[in-house]
Amino acid sequence: MKLITALFDGETFVGAVPQGDDRAVHLRRAERTMDGTETMPTTMLEAIAQGEAFFTRAQEVVDWALRHPAPEYVYRLSDVRLLAPIPRPAKNIFCIGKNYVDHALELGGADVPEHLIVFTKAPTTVIGHEETILRHADVTDEMDYEGELAVVIGKQGRAIRREDALDYVFGYTIINDVTARDLQERHQQYFLGKSLDTFCPMGPWIVPSKFVPNPNDLRIETRVNGEVRQQANTKQLIFSIESIIETISKGITLEPGDIIATGTPAGVGKGMNPPRFLQTGDVIEVTVEGIGMLRNKVGE
Amino acid sequence: MKLITALFDGETFVGAVPQGDDRAVHLRRAERTMDGTETMPTTMLEAIAQGEAFFTRAQEVVDWALRHPAPEYVYRLSDVRLLAPIPRPAKNIFCIGKNYVDHALELGGADVPEHLIVFTKAPTTVIGHEETILRHADVTDEMDYEGELAVVIGKQGRAIRREDALDYVFGYTIINDVTARDLQERHQQYFLGKSLDTFCPMGPWIVPSKFVPNPNDLRIETRVNGEVRQQANTKQLIFSIESIIETISKGITLEPGDIIATGTPAGVGKGMNPPRFLQTGDVIEVTVEGIGMLRNKVGE
Repeated sequence: MKLITALFDGETFVGAVPQGDDRAVHLRRAERTMDGTETMPTTMLEAIAQGEAFFTRAQEVVDWALRHPAPEYVYRLSDVRLLAPIPRPAKNIFCIGKNYVDHALELGGADVPEHLIVFTKAPTTVIGHEETILRHADVTDEMDYEGELAVVIGKQGRAIRREDALDYVFGYTIINDVTARDLQERHQQYFLGKSLDTFCPMGPWIVPSKFVPNPNDLRIETRVNGEVRQQANTKQLIFSIESIIETISKGITLEPGDIIATGTPAGVGKGMNPPRFLQTGDVIEVTVEGIGMLRNKVGE
Repeated sequence: MKLITALFDGETFVGAVPQGDDRAVHLRRAERTMDGTETMPTTMLEAIAQGEAFFTRAQEVVDWALRHPAPEYVYRLSDVRLLAPIPRPAKNIFCIGKNYVDHALELGGADVPEHLIVFTKAPTTVIGHEETILRHADVTDEMDYEGELAVVIGKQGRAIRREDALDYVFGYTIINDVTARDLQERHQQYFLGKSLDTFCPMGPWIVPSKFVPNPNDLRIETRVNGEVRQQANTKQLIFSIESIIETISKGITLEPGDIIATGTPAGVGKGMNPPRFLQTGDVIEVTVEGIGMLRNKVGE
Protein backbone atom coordinates (compact mmCIF):
# COMPACT_ATOMS: atom_id res chain seq x y z
CA MET A 1 0.00 0.00 0.00
CA LYS A 2 1.13 3.53 -0.79
CA LEU A 3 -0.27 6.63 0.90
CA ILE A 4 -1.04 9.74 -1.10
CA THR A 5 -2.17 13.27 -0.52
CA ALA A 6 -4.10 14.22 -3.63
CA LEU A 7 -6.60 16.55 -5.17
CA PHE A 8 -9.78 15.29 -6.81
CA ASP A 9 -12.78 17.37 -7.77
CA GLY A 10 -11.48 20.34 -5.80
CA GLU A 11 -10.94 18.39 -2.59
CA THR A 12 -7.62 17.49 -1.00
CA PHE A 13 -7.71 14.02 0.55
CA VAL A 14 -5.58 11.25 2.01
CA GLY A 15 -5.74 8.14 -0.11
CA ALA A 16 -4.35 4.64 -0.26
CA VAL A 17 -3.11 2.94 -3.40
CA PRO A 18 -3.19 -0.87 -3.02
CA GLN A 19 -0.06 -2.79 -4.02
CA GLY A 20 0.13 -3.27 -7.80
CA ASP A 21 -3.11 -1.35 -8.33
CA ASP A 22 -3.75 1.78 -10.37
CA ARG A 23 -6.58 3.01 -8.20
CA ALA A 24 -6.68 5.28 -5.16
CA VAL A 25 -9.11 4.89 -2.29
CA HIS A 26 -10.35 8.10 -0.62
CA LEU A 27 -10.00 6.72 2.90
CA ARG A 28 -12.36 9.04 4.71
CA ARG A 29 -15.18 8.79 2.18
CA ALA A 30 -14.85 5.03 1.85
CA GLU A 31 -14.91 4.63 5.62
CA ARG A 32 -18.03 6.77 5.93
CA THR A 33 -19.81 4.72 3.31
CA MET A 34 -18.61 1.48 4.88
CA ASP A 35 -19.97 2.02 8.38
CA GLY A 36 -20.79 5.70 8.91
CA THR A 37 -17.68 6.47 10.96
CA GLU A 38 -15.13 9.21 10.25
CA THR A 39 -11.90 8.21 11.96
CA MET A 40 -9.80 8.36 8.80
CA PRO A 41 -7.63 11.51 8.58
CA THR A 42 -8.05 14.51 6.30
CA THR A 43 -4.30 15.18 6.19
CA MET A 44 -1.20 13.00 6.18
CA LEU A 45 0.04 14.64 9.38
CA GLU A 46 -3.18 13.48 11.07
CA ALA A 47 -2.66 10.00 9.65
CA ILE A 48 0.84 9.89 11.10
CA ALA A 49 -0.39 11.19 14.46
CA GLN A 50 -2.87 8.28 14.65
CA GLY A 51 0.03 5.85 14.81
CA GLU A 52 -0.40 2.09 14.36
CA ALA A 53 -4.19 2.38 14.60
CA PHE A 54 -4.16 4.27 11.32
CA PHE A 55 -2.63 1.39 9.38
CA THR A 56 -4.99 -1.20 10.83
CA ARG A 57 -8.06 0.84 10.05
CA ALA A 58 -6.82 2.02 6.63
CA GLN A 59 -6.22 -1.58 5.57
CA GLU A 60 -9.73 -2.49 6.68
CA VAL A 61 -11.22 0.42 4.72
CA VAL A 62 -9.20 -0.36 1.60
CA ASP A 63 -10.15 -4.05 1.68
CA TRP A 64 -13.81 -3.11 2.00
CA ALA A 65 -13.60 -0.42 -0.71
CA LEU A 66 -12.07 -2.81 -3.23
CA ARG A 67 -14.87 -5.28 -2.58
CA HIS A 68 -17.44 -2.48 -2.96
CA PRO A 69 -15.87 -0.04 -5.41
CA ALA A 70 -17.84 3.13 -6.18
CA PRO A 71 -16.80 6.30 -8.02
CA GLU A 72 -17.39 8.38 -4.87
CA TYR A 73 -14.35 6.90 -3.15
CA VAL A 74 -12.40 4.71 -5.60
CA TYR A 75 -10.60 6.79 -8.24
CA ARG A 76 -8.26 5.97 -11.07
CA LEU A 77 -4.83 7.13 -9.94
CA SER A 78 -4.49 8.87 -13.29
CA ASP A 79 -7.55 10.99 -12.51
CA VAL A 80 -6.23 12.53 -9.29
CA ARG A 81 -3.58 15.20 -8.98
CA LEU A 82 -0.89 14.07 -6.57
CA LEU A 83 0.36 16.64 -4.09
CA ALA A 84 3.44 16.22 -1.94
CA PRO A 85 2.51 13.52 0.58
CA ILE A 86 3.07 16.13 3.32
CA PRO A 87 2.33 19.36 1.45
CA ARG A 88 3.16 21.61 4.37
CA PRO A 89 5.54 20.09 6.93
CA ALA A 90 5.29 21.57 10.44
CA LYS A 91 9.00 22.41 10.47
CA ASN A 92 11.93 22.53 8.07
CA ILE A 93 12.97 19.30 6.37
CA PHE A 94 16.10 17.79 7.93
CA CYS A 95 18.70 17.06 5.22
CA ILE A 96 21.95 15.12 5.35
CA GLY A 97 24.96 16.41 3.44
CA LYS A 98 27.72 14.37 1.79
CA ASN A 99 26.38 11.00 2.86
CA TYR A 100 27.76 8.98 -0.08
CA VAL A 101 31.56 8.75 -0.46
CA ASP A 102 31.67 9.40 -4.21
CA HIS A 103 29.42 12.44 -3.87
CA ALA A 104 31.49 13.88 -1.02
CA LEU A 105 34.53 13.59 -3.28
CA GLU A 106 32.95 14.89 -6.50
CA LEU A 107 32.15 18.21 -4.78
CA GLY A 108 35.85 18.97 -4.72
CA GLY A 109 36.69 18.28 -1.11
CA ALA A 110 39.16 15.56 -0.20
CA ASP A 111 37.00 15.07 2.86
CA VAL A 112 34.54 12.33 3.54
CA PRO A 113 32.70 13.49 6.67
CA GLU A 114 33.52 11.77 9.93
CA HIS A 115 30.40 13.23 11.52
CA LEU A 116 26.88 13.67 10.24
CA ILE A 117 26.25 16.94 8.36
CA VAL A 118 22.72 18.26 8.91
CA PHE A 119 21.08 21.29 7.34
CA THR A 120 17.46 22.17 6.58
CA LYS A 121 15.07 23.26 3.86
CA ALA A 122 12.15 25.59 4.66
CA PRO A 123 8.59 24.17 4.36
CA THR A 124 7.97 26.72 1.58
CA THR A 125 10.24 24.63 -0.67
CA VAL A 126 7.87 21.66 -0.84
CA ILE A 127 6.09 20.74 -4.09
CA GLY A 128 4.60 17.49 -5.33
CA HIS A 129 5.19 15.03 -8.16
CA GLU A 130 4.86 16.71 -11.58
CA GLU A 131 4.77 20.20 -10.07
CA THR A 132 7.11 22.82 -11.53
CA ILE A 133 10.49 23.60 -9.99
CA LEU A 134 10.98 27.35 -10.42
CA ARG A 135 14.16 28.26 -12.28
CA HIS A 136 14.89 31.37 -10.12
CA ALA A 137 17.14 32.73 -12.88
CA ASP A 138 17.43 36.10 -11.11
CA VAL A 139 18.84 34.42 -8.02
CA THR A 140 21.00 31.51 -9.20
CA ASP A 141 23.03 30.47 -12.23
CA GLU A 142 23.85 27.06 -10.83
CA MET A 143 20.68 25.10 -10.17
CA ASP A 144 21.33 21.44 -9.46
CA TYR A 145 19.42 18.25 -8.60
CA GLU A 146 20.00 15.75 -5.79
CA GLY A 147 17.92 12.57 -5.78
CA GLU A 148 17.40 11.19 -2.26
CA LEU A 149 15.55 8.63 -0.20
CA ALA A 150 13.58 10.40 2.54
CA VAL A 151 12.39 9.08 5.88
CA VAL A 152 9.11 10.16 7.48
CA ILE A 153 9.14 9.93 11.28
CA GLY A 154 6.09 8.34 12.87
CA LYS A 155 6.67 8.56 16.60
CA GLN A 156 8.02 11.16 18.97
CA GLY A 157 11.41 10.37 20.44
CA ARG A 158 14.65 11.70 21.84
CA ALA A 159 17.89 9.80 22.39
CA ILE A 160 16.62 7.03 20.14
CA ARG A 161 19.00 4.08 20.08
CA ARG A 162 20.26 2.83 16.73
CA GLU A 163 18.69 -0.58 17.26
CA ASP A 164 15.26 0.98 17.86
CA ALA A 165 15.51 3.66 15.17
CA LEU A 166 13.44 1.98 12.46
CA ASP A 167 10.53 1.61 14.89
CA TYR A 168 10.26 5.41 14.73
CA VAL A 169 9.81 5.46 10.95
CA PHE A 170 6.32 5.90 9.52
CA GLY A 171 7.39 5.39 5.94
CA TYR A 172 9.60 6.41 3.04
CA THR A 173 9.31 8.82 0.18
CA ILE A 174 11.58 10.49 -2.38
CA ILE A 175 12.99 14.01 -2.29
CA ASN A 176 14.83 15.97 -4.92
CA ASP A 177 17.05 18.22 -2.81
CA VAL A 178 17.28 20.95 -5.45
CA THR A 179 20.25 23.22 -4.78
CA ALA A 180 21.54 26.59 -5.95
CA ARG A 181 25.26 25.76 -5.89
CA ASP A 182 26.40 29.38 -6.16
CA LEU A 183 24.29 30.41 -3.17
CA GLN A 184 25.30 27.30 -1.23
CA GLU A 185 28.95 28.27 -1.62
CA ARG A 186 28.66 32.05 -1.36
CA HIS A 187 26.64 32.01 1.86
CA GLN A 188 28.77 29.35 3.62
CA GLN A 189 25.90 27.65 5.45
CA TYR A 190 23.82 25.57 3.01
CA PHE A 191 20.37 26.81 4.06
CA LEU A 192 19.87 29.68 1.60
CA GLY A 193 20.98 27.75 -1.48
CA LYS A 194 18.76 24.84 -0.46
CA SER A 195 15.60 26.74 0.40
CA LEU A 196 14.43 28.63 -2.66
CA ASP A 197 10.68 28.25 -3.22
CA THR A 198 9.83 24.90 -4.95
CA PHE A 199 13.30 23.45 -4.24
CA CYS A 200 11.93 20.39 -2.44
CA PRO A 201 9.92 18.15 -4.78
CA MET A 202 8.60 15.30 -2.62
CA GLY A 203 6.63 12.19 -3.47
CA PRO A 204 4.94 10.78 -5.33
CA TRP A 205 3.72 9.07 -2.15
CA ILE A 206 4.76 7.54 1.14
CA VAL A 207 5.39 3.80 1.30
CA PRO A 208 4.75 2.67 4.89
CA SER A 209 7.82 1.20 6.53
CA LYS A 210 6.26 -2.26 6.88
CA PHE A 211 6.43 -2.56 3.07
CA VAL A 212 10.12 -1.60 2.94
CA PRO A 213 12.02 -4.58 4.35
CA ASN A 214 15.46 -2.94 4.24
CA PRO A 215 15.70 0.80 3.54
CA ASN A 216 19.48 0.50 3.63
CA ASP A 217 19.48 -1.59 0.45
CA LEU A 218 17.48 0.26 -2.20
CA ARG A 219 18.68 1.20 -5.68
CA ILE A 220 18.43 4.93 -6.37
CA GLU A 221 18.66 6.58 -9.75
CA THR A 222 18.29 10.11 -11.07
CA ARG A 223 17.72 10.94 -14.75
CA VAL A 224 17.78 14.35 -16.37
CA ASN A 225 15.90 14.42 -19.68
CA GLY A 226 16.15 10.64 -19.73
CA GLU A 227 19.91 10.52 -19.22
CA VAL A 228 21.08 8.62 -16.15
CA ARG A 229 23.06 10.93 -13.89
CA GLN A 230 22.99 9.29 -10.48
CA GLN A 231 22.95 5.56 -9.87
CA ALA A 232 23.66 4.08 -6.48
CA ASN A 233 22.25 2.02 -3.64
CA THR A 234 21.33 3.22 -0.17
CA LYS A 235 23.66 0.54 1.22
CA GLN A 236 26.41 2.98 0.20
CA LEU A 237 25.18 5.56 2.70
CA ILE A 238 28.08 6.60 4.95
CA PHE A 239 25.60 7.11 7.81
CA SER A 240 22.78 4.56 7.72
CA ILE A 241 19.20 5.55 8.41
CA GLU A 242 19.49 4.14 11.93
CA SER A 243 22.65 6.13 12.54
CA ILE A 244 21.05 9.36 11.22
CA ILE A 245 18.06 9.00 13.53
CA GLU A 246 20.31 8.18 16.48
CA THR A 247 22.56 11.20 15.93
CA ILE A 248 19.85 13.79 15.28
CA SER A 249 17.71 12.63 18.18
CA LYS A 250 20.57 12.75 20.71
CA GLY A 251 19.53 16.23 21.77
CA ILE A 252 16.66 17.00 19.41
CA THR A 253 13.17 15.60 19.89
CA LEU A 254 11.99 14.02 16.65
CA GLU A 255 8.24 14.35 16.09
CA PRO A 256 5.61 12.56 13.99
CA GLY A 257 5.68 14.05 10.50
CA ASP A 258 9.33 15.07 10.60
CA ILE A 259 11.06 14.41 7.30
CA ILE A 260 14.72 13.49 6.87
CA ALA A 261 16.32 13.46 3.42
CA THR A 262 19.18 10.98 3.68
CA GLY A 263 21.68 12.49 1.23
CA THR A 264 22.46 12.19 -2.45
CA PRO A 265 24.87 9.91 -4.35
CA ALA A 266 27.52 11.01 -6.88
CA GLY A 267 26.45 12.37 -10.23
CA VAL A 268 25.13 15.86 -9.53
CA GLY A 269 25.54 18.52 -12.22
CA LYS A 270 28.15 20.39 -10.18
CA GLY A 271 30.37 17.30 -10.11
CA MET A 272 30.58 16.96 -13.91
CA ASN A 273 33.41 18.39 -15.98
CA PRO A 274 32.36 20.93 -17.08
CA PRO A 275 29.44 21.30 -14.63
CA ARG A 276 25.98 20.87 -16.15
CA PHE A 277 23.36 22.86 -14.29
CA LEU A 278 19.61 22.67 -14.71
CA GLN A 279 17.84 24.81 -17.30
CA THR A 280 14.23 25.69 -17.93
CA GLY A 281 12.49 22.72 -19.54
CA ASP A 282 14.70 20.06 -17.98
CA VAL A 283 12.89 17.06 -16.57
CA ILE A 284 14.31 15.35 -13.49
CA GLU A 285 13.20 11.86 -12.50
CA VAL A 286 14.32 10.32 -9.23
CA THR A 287 13.58 6.62 -8.81
CA VAL A 288 14.01 4.68 -5.60
CA GLU A 289 13.53 0.91 -5.64
CA GLY A 290 10.35 -0.14 -3.89
CA ILE A 291 9.22 3.46 -3.43
CA GLY A 292 8.50 4.91 -6.87
CA MET A 293 9.50 7.66 -9.25
CA LEU A 294 9.34 11.40 -8.61
CA ARG A 295 9.26 13.56 -11.74
CA ASN A 296 9.46 17.34 -12.00
CA LYS A 297 10.13 19.83 -14.73
CA VAL A 298 12.02 23.08 -14.39
CA GLY A 299 9.90 26.05 -15.42
CA GLU A 300 9.50 29.78 -14.99
CA MET B 1 2.24 48.23 23.95
CA LYS B 2 3.87 44.80 24.24
CA LEU B 3 2.24 41.58 23.13
CA ILE B 4 2.49 38.45 25.21
CA THR B 5 1.52 34.82 25.02
CA ALA B 6 0.92 33.78 28.60
CA LEU B 7 -0.68 31.27 30.89
CA PHE B 8 -3.18 32.28 33.58
CA ASP B 9 -5.45 29.99 35.52
CA GLY B 10 -4.69 27.10 33.15
CA GLU B 11 -5.50 29.03 29.98
CA THR B 12 -3.03 30.18 27.35
CA PHE B 13 -3.95 33.60 25.97
CA VAL B 14 -2.70 36.51 23.89
CA GLY B 15 -2.38 39.63 25.98
CA ALA B 16 -1.32 43.24 25.67
CA VAL B 17 0.79 45.09 28.20
CA PRO B 18 0.27 48.85 27.93
CA GLN B 19 3.38 51.04 27.80
CA GLY B 20 4.83 51.61 31.24
CA ASP B 21 2.17 49.44 32.86
CA ASP B 22 2.57 46.32 34.96
CA ARG B 23 -0.74 44.81 33.92
CA ALA B 24 -1.70 42.49 31.08
CA VAL B 25 -5.02 42.62 29.26
CA HIS B 26 -6.48 39.29 28.09
CA LEU B 27 -7.54 40.64 24.70
CA ARG B 28 -10.18 38.09 23.82
CA ARG B 29 -11.91 38.15 27.19
CA ALA B 30 -11.83 41.94 27.42
CA GLU B 31 -13.27 42.27 23.92
CA ARG B 32 -16.07 39.85 24.70
CA THR B 33 -16.99 41.80 27.82
CA MET B 34 -16.71 45.11 25.96
CA ASP B 35 -19.17 44.39 23.17
CA GLY B 36 -19.80 40.65 22.92
CA THR B 37 -17.57 40.11 19.88
CA GLU B 38 -14.71 37.60 19.60
CA THR B 39 -12.39 38.84 16.86
CA MET B 40 -9.29 38.90 19.08
CA PRO B 41 -6.94 35.96 18.48
CA THR B 42 -6.27 32.98 20.70
CA THR B 43 -2.66 32.61 19.47
CA MET B 44 0.05 35.05 18.42
CA LEU B 45 0.20 33.47 14.96
CA GLU B 46 -3.50 34.33 14.53
CA ALA B 47 -2.81 37.88 15.72
CA ILE B 48 -0.07 38.26 13.13
CA ALA B 49 -2.28 36.80 10.40
CA GLN B 50 -4.91 39.47 11.13
CA GLY B 51 -2.48 42.17 10.00
CA GLU B 52 -3.04 45.87 10.65
CA ALA B 53 -6.64 45.25 11.75
CA PHE B 54 -5.28 43.42 14.78
CA PHE B 55 -3.43 46.46 16.10
CA THR B 56 -6.36 48.83 15.63
CA ARG B 57 -8.75 46.52 17.40
CA ALA B 58 -6.30 45.51 20.14
CA GLN B 59 -5.66 49.17 20.99
CA GLU B 60 -9.42 49.77 21.20
CA VAL B 61 -9.86 46.78 23.50
CA VAL B 62 -6.92 47.78 25.73
CA ASP B 63 -8.16 51.38 26.05
CA TRP B 64 -11.60 50.14 27.04
CA ALA B 65 -10.22 47.51 29.44
CA LEU B 66 -8.11 50.05 31.30
CA ARG B 67 -11.14 52.29 31.73
CA HIS B 68 -13.19 49.30 32.94
CA PRO B 69 -10.66 47.02 34.65
CA ALA B 70 -11.93 43.72 36.03
CA PRO B 71 -10.06 40.68 37.33
CA GLU B 72 -11.55 38.50 34.55
CA TYR B 73 -9.42 40.21 31.89
CA VAL B 74 -6.93 42.59 33.52
CA TYR B 75 -4.15 40.72 35.32
CA ARG B 76 -1.02 41.78 37.14
CA LEU B 77 1.86 40.88 34.85
CA SER B 78 3.52 39.23 37.83
CA ASP B 79 0.56 36.86 38.17
CA VAL B 80 0.78 35.38 34.66
CA ARG B 81 3.37 32.92 33.39
CA LEU B 82 4.93 34.24 30.21
CA LEU B 83 5.44 31.73 27.41
CA ALA B 84 7.53 32.37 24.31
CA PRO B 85 5.52 34.95 22.32
CA ILE B 86 5.29 32.35 19.52
CA PRO B 87 5.56 29.10 21.49
CA ARG B 88 5.50 26.89 18.42
CA PRO B 89 6.68 28.55 15.19
CA ALA B 90 5.34 26.99 11.97
CA LYS B 91 8.85 26.48 10.63
CA ASN B 92 12.43 26.65 11.84
CA ILE B 93 13.73 29.99 13.12
CA PHE B 94 15.98 31.73 10.58
CA CYS B 95 19.28 32.71 12.20
CA ILE B 96 22.09 34.93 10.96
CA GLY B 97 25.70 33.94 11.65
CA LYS B 98 28.69 36.22 12.26
CA ASN B 99 26.77 39.47 11.78
CA TYR B 100 28.91 41.64 14.09
CA VAL B 101 32.57 42.19 13.10
CA ASP B 102 34.05 41.61 16.56
CA HIS B 103 32.09 38.38 16.98
CA ALA B 104 33.14 37.08 13.57
CA LEU B 105 36.76 37.65 14.62
CA GLU B 106 36.52 36.28 18.17
CA LEU B 107 35.46 32.88 16.81
CA GLY B 108 38.97 32.44 15.45
CA GLY B 109 38.41 33.14 11.77
CA ALA B 110 40.15 36.04 10.07
CA ASP B 111 37.01 36.26 8.00
CA VAL B 112 34.24 38.80 8.22
CA PRO B 113 31.51 37.44 5.96
CA GLU B 114 30.96 39.17 2.63
CA HIS B 115 27.63 37.43 2.24
CA LEU B 116 24.84 36.71 4.67
CA ILE B 117 25.19 33.43 6.60
CA VAL B 118 21.83 31.80 7.31
CA PHE B 119 21.10 28.67 9.30
CA THR B 120 18.09 27.51 11.30
CA LYS B 121 16.91 26.25 14.66
CA ALA B 122 14.11 23.67 14.91
CA PRO B 123 10.78 24.78 16.47
CA THR B 124 11.40 22.23 19.25
CA THR B 125 14.14 24.56 20.58
CA VAL B 126 11.74 27.31 21.63
CA ILE B 127 11.15 28.12 25.30
CA GLY B 128 9.92 31.28 27.03
CA HIS B 129 11.27 33.81 29.53
CA GLU B 130 12.31 32.16 32.81
CA GLU B 131 11.99 28.66 31.37
CA THR B 132 14.90 26.28 31.87
CA ILE B 133 17.58 25.76 29.23
CA LEU B 134 18.51 22.06 29.41
CA ARG B 135 22.20 21.45 30.00
CA HIS B 136 22.37 18.38 27.67
CA ALA B 137 25.57 17.27 29.45
CA ASP B 138 25.50 13.90 27.65
CA VAL B 139 25.59 15.64 24.25
CA THR B 140 27.77 18.74 24.65
CA ASP B 141 30.65 20.01 26.79
CA GLU B 142 30.62 23.46 25.23
CA MET B 143 27.26 25.14 25.79
CA ASP B 144 27.30 28.83 24.93
CA TYR B 145 24.94 31.83 24.84
CA GLU B 146 24.30 34.33 22.05
CA GLY B 147 22.06 37.31 22.82
CA GLU B 148 20.23 38.59 19.75
CA LEU B 149 17.55 40.95 18.52
CA ALA B 150 14.90 38.96 16.62
CA VAL B 151 12.49 40.12 13.94
CA VAL B 152 8.96 38.74 13.58
CA ILE B 153 7.61 38.91 10.03
CA GLY B 154 4.06 40.22 9.64
CA LYS B 155 3.32 39.99 5.94
CA GLN B 156 3.96 37.46 3.18
CA GLY B 157 6.54 38.53 0.65
CA ARG B 158 9.18 37.45 -1.83
CA ALA B 159 11.83 39.63 -3.48
CA ILE B 160 11.22 42.32 -0.86
CA ARG B 161 13.21 45.45 -1.59
CA ARG B 162 15.46 46.83 1.10
CA GLU B 163 13.51 50.10 1.22
CA ASP B 164 10.23 48.26 1.84
CA ALA B 165 11.65 45.65 4.22
CA LEU B 166 10.54 47.17 7.53
CA ASP B 167 6.92 47.27 6.28
CA TYR B 168 7.05 43.47 6.47
CA VAL B 169 7.98 43.43 10.15
CA PHE B 170 5.27 42.72 12.72
CA GLY B 171 7.50 43.39 15.70
CA TYR B 172 10.65 42.59 17.60
CA THR B 173 11.62 40.21 20.37
CA ILE B 174 14.77 38.79 21.93
CA ILE B 175 16.36 35.41 21.30
CA ASN B 176 19.17 33.64 23.07
CA ASP B 177 20.70 31.56 20.26
CA VAL B 178 22.08 28.90 22.62
CA THR B 179 24.79 26.88 20.90
CA ALA B 180 26.70 23.65 21.51
CA ARG B 181 30.08 24.80 20.14
CA ASP B 182 31.54 21.29 19.94
CA LEU B 183 28.60 20.02 17.87
CA GLN B 184 28.59 23.19 15.74
CA GLU B 185 32.21 22.53 14.81
CA ARG B 186 32.19 18.73 14.60
CA HIS B 187 29.15 18.54 12.31
CA GLN B 188 30.27 21.34 9.93
CA GLN B 189 26.81 22.77 9.27
CA TYR B 190 25.57 24.72 12.31
CA PHE B 191 22.08 23.17 12.55
CA LEU B 192 22.74 20.30 14.99
CA GLY B 193 24.70 22.38 17.48
CA LYS B 194 22.03 25.07 17.37
CA SER B 195 18.93 22.89 17.65
CA LEU B 196 19.09 20.95 20.89
CA ASP B 197 15.77 21.03 22.75
CA THR B 198 15.30 24.32 24.72
CA PHE B 199 18.15 26.05 22.85
CA CYS B 200 15.97 28.96 21.71
CA PRO B 201 14.75 31.06 24.63
CA MET B 202 12.50 33.74 23.13
CA GLY B 203 10.67 36.71 24.64
CA PRO B 204 9.66 38.01 27.04
CA TRP B 205 7.22 39.52 24.52
CA ILE B 206 6.92 41.10 21.10
CA VAL B 207 7.13 44.87 20.78
CA PRO B 208 5.16 45.87 17.66
CA SER B 209 7.34 47.57 15.05
CA LYS B 210 5.45 50.88 15.35
CA PHE B 211 6.92 51.26 18.84
CA VAL B 212 10.50 50.62 17.65
CA PRO B 213 11.52 53.73 15.70
CA ASN B 214 14.90 52.39 14.56
CA PRO B 215 15.68 48.69 15.08
CA ASN B 216 19.16 49.32 13.66
CA ASP B 217 20.11 51.44 16.67
CA LEU B 218 19.36 49.46 19.83
CA ARG B 219 21.77 48.70 22.64
CA ILE B 220 22.09 44.97 23.33
CA GLU B 221 23.65 43.41 26.38
CA THR B 222 24.08 39.88 27.70
CA ARG B 223 24.91 39.06 31.31
CA VAL B 224 25.83 35.71 32.78
CA ASN B 225 25.26 35.51 36.54
CA GLY B 226 25.16 39.31 36.53
CA GLU B 227 28.50 39.74 34.74
CA VAL B 228 28.33 41.69 31.47
CA ARG B 229 29.58 39.49 28.63
CA GLN B 230 28.17 41.09 25.47
CA GLN B 231 27.60 44.80 24.98
CA ALA B 232 26.94 46.28 21.58
CA ASN B 233 24.44 48.16 19.45
CA THR B 234 22.45 46.83 16.51
CA LYS B 235 23.90 49.66 14.43
CA GLN B 236 27.05 47.49 14.37
CA LEU B 237 25.22 44.77 12.42
CA ILE B 238 27.23 43.95 9.28
CA PHE B 239 23.97 43.18 7.47
CA SER B 240 21.15 45.48 8.61
CA ILE B 241 17.65 44.18 9.22
CA GLU B 242 16.55 45.55 5.84
CA SER B 243 19.45 43.82 4.12
CA ILE B 244 18.71 40.51 5.87
CA ILE B 245 15.07 40.56 4.77
CA GLU B 246 16.04 41.51 1.22
CA THR B 247 18.60 38.72 0.90
CA ILE B 248 16.53 35.92 2.44
CA SER B 249 13.40 36.85 0.49
CA LYS B 250 15.17 36.92 -2.88
CA GLY B 251 14.13 33.36 -3.57
CA ILE B 252 12.36 32.39 -0.35
CA THR B 253 8.82 33.48 0.46
CA LEU B 254 8.73 35.00 3.93
CA GLU B 255 5.47 34.37 5.77
CA PRO B 256 3.62 35.95 8.69
CA GLY B 257 5.02 34.53 11.91
CA ASP B 258 8.48 33.82 10.51
CA ILE B 259 11.20 34.67 13.01
CA ILE B 260 14.69 35.90 12.13
CA ALA B 261 17.40 36.13 14.79
CA THR B 262 19.76 38.84 13.56
CA GLY B 263 23.07 37.60 14.94
CA THR B 264 25.08 38.02 18.12
CA PRO B 265 27.82 40.52 19.08
CA ALA B 266 31.25 39.71 20.50
CA GLY B 267 31.57 38.30 23.99
CA VAL B 268 30.39 34.71 23.74
CA GLY B 269 31.95 32.15 26.07
CA LYS B 270 33.83 30.47 23.22
CA GLY B 271 35.59 33.74 22.41
CA MET B 272 37.11 34.15 25.89
CA ASN B 273 40.60 33.00 26.81
CA PRO B 274 40.22 30.40 28.13
CA PRO B 275 36.66 29.75 26.91
CA ARG B 276 33.95 29.90 29.55
CA PHE B 277 31.04 27.67 28.72
CA LEU B 278 27.66 27.54 30.45
CA GLN B 279 27.12 25.29 33.45
CA THR B 280 24.05 24.12 35.32
CA GLY B 281 22.75 26.96 37.49
CA ASP B 282 24.04 29.78 35.27
CA VAL B 283 21.56 32.60 34.63
CA ILE B 284 21.68 34.38 31.29
CA GLU B 285 19.99 37.74 30.80
CA VAL B 286 19.74 39.30 27.36
CA THR B 287 18.58 42.92 27.30
CA VAL B 288 17.69 44.84 24.15
CA GLU B 289 16.93 48.55 24.43
CA GLY B 290 13.26 49.30 23.93
CA ILE B 291 12.35 45.60 23.85
CA GLY B 292 13.01 44.16 27.29
CA MET B 293 15.03 41.55 29.12
CA LEU B 294 14.98 37.79 28.53
CA ARG B 295 16.20 35.69 31.44
CA ASN B 296 16.80 31.95 31.56
CA LYS B 297 18.60 29.58 33.85
CA VAL B 298 20.51 26.48 32.82
CA GLY B 299 19.14 23.36 34.49
CA GLU B 300 18.95 19.60 34.21
